[in-house]
Amino acid sequence: MKVTVAATQMACGWDREANMAGAERLVREAAARGANVVLIQELFETPYFCKDHLAKHFELASEIGENPAVKRLAGVAAELGVVLPLSVFERAQNAYFNTLVMVDADGSSLGIYRKSHIPESPGYHEKFYFSPGDTGFRVWQTRFGRLGVGICWDQWFPECARAMAVMGADILLYPTAIGSEPQDPTLDSRWHWQRTMQGHAAANVMPVVASNRIGLEQGEKCSITFYGHSFIADHTGAVVEEADDHSETVLTATFDLDATRRYRQAWGVFRDRRPDLYGPLLSLGSPQS
Amino acid sequence: MKVTVAATQMACGWDREANMAGAERLVREAAARGANVVLIQELFETPYFCKDHLAKHFELASEIGENPAVKRLAGVAAELGVVLPLSVFERAQNAYFNTLVMVDADGSSLGIYRKSHIPESPGYHEKFYFSPGDTGFRVWQTRFGRLGVGICWDQWFPECARAMAVMGADILLYPTAIGSEPQDPTLDSRWHWQRTMQGHAAANVMPVVASNRIGLEQGEKCSITFYGHSFIADHTGAVVEEADDHSETVLTATFDLDATRRYRQAWGVFRDRRPDLYGPLLSLGSPQS
Repeated sequence: MKVTVAATQMACGWDREANMAGAERLVREAAARGANVVLIQELFETPYFCKDHLAKHFELASEIGENPAVKRLAGVAAELGVVLPLSVFERAQNAYFNTLVMVDADGSSLGIYRKSHIPESPGYHEKFYFSPGDTGFRVWQTRFGRLGVGICWDQWFPECARAMAVMGADILLYPTAIGSEPQDPTLDSRWHWQRTMQGHAAANVMPVVASNRIGLEQGEKCSITFYGHSFIADHTGAVVEEADDHSETVLTATFDLDATRRYRQAWGVFRDRRPDLYGPLLSLGSPQS
Repeated sequence: MKVTVAATQMACGWDREANMAGAERLVREAAARGANVVLIQELFETPYFCKDHLAKHFELASEIGENPAVKRLAGVAAELGVVLPLSVFERAQNAYFNTLVMVDADGSSLGIYRKSHIPESPGYHEKFYFSPGDTGFRVWQTRFGRLGVGICWDQWFPECARAMAVMGADILLYPTAIGSEPQDPTLDSRWHWQRTMQGHAAANVMPVVASNRIGLEQGEKCSITFYGHSFIADHTGAVVEEADDHSETVLTATFDLDATRRYRQAWGVFRDRRPDLYGPLLSLGSPQS
């Protein structure tokens, strides 16, 4: 099966309706260009509110069934026949998660994934807002392939990518919000960020799609310039499409999932894994060190 | 501590003495250029004999204590004060392994690692010669940093790199023998190969050193042109030194291991790992798929 994936990027402000409209506009553009799966960036309904520790921002969360962006874009998914992995701020009773809702091409929800790896650093205060996810990694059989999604910081963890691959993913997707580091203006992680995910594509022999936001966002104690550079990598980790650091963009690329699977099985890496030796991965610091 | 690492590459023929002399020449050149750790390619004592299934090649193996290259190069290590991870074909009673002997800068052996992931494909018939390693991954405290070594095919497995990182490695090294694919002259894996290891460097926030052989080697049923391209990547996965596909080469790069450790700890990925969710890594195919 040939599948066309799209990565999108845009700037977000405090007008939530405008953000949703922007996301819908990009989804429609991607679909018009033949996309079957369209990835929108992380937490696209709002600015990246984790720049500060502000309790009022918990009010931005919704229960999954009440999320306005999911309601609206599920209708768009059904209308256009596209799969939409949607990144939302989830409230679940007294708990809050950074969550992904997988909307299939008929507009139905296939379930959720809650971000497993939660960062905490200057300007990226996610541990204040989100509990570490409790769903475990998820892979969904959609109308257009088996999709695995990691959310932003998850993209730095080879365990997450590998787990999704072991669970049968055909494509890995990463909605993202990453940019400048308030504590160090000289630190530019964009290539480090990209190479880490190219590595996931190469090691797991499957395409990777990353969508990141753009724009300067001002918080109370810092500002962040999000660096875009959304990209699509093929099953050897080669970047085949890439956005710049400031333009609203839709990228598309078409992959033959059967051909990729044939390449993967012939390459043999999933045959030769040694789970009997992977015990050290289950500790944070090995007793041997 | 600042450590200078070297990656070397050369062609090997059936004159075992000449191969050892070639390796020693490259080690001496690297040391003269300030190297503290010198990586020689995989199985440098002989041609890459796994091109064929030939039982006579088991005669190439030695018990570790009897290996002539280890004996000779341990003396060179002590003389020059360099750490030498040495790749050898090991016989252990009735078992055969693709093994790494870690020789410290005083010429003493710190122990061995047996290659965990064993390939089997046209021209790369390693499953005929080597049992999958039973040592588990190893990290050694050497005079020049904590070193983790994966052997060739191990380099395709993020689990191996991550395990060594969790066990406290400062630098990851990969002696290699890879080149053309006899069954498909159009298949060129060199960038796929390199991107996979760049990913290990980026995800684990530590330098990676890869040494590969060069030269056309004729087997009985196929030939392989080894593609060299030995390289050194920094802690963000950027390639800082790289060889071409046909020249005998010594590459060197200097890393401040303390600065790299500070970068790694500030970046936070080892803080945020979720071993409680990594269960899928312990199966070859998840029951969820």
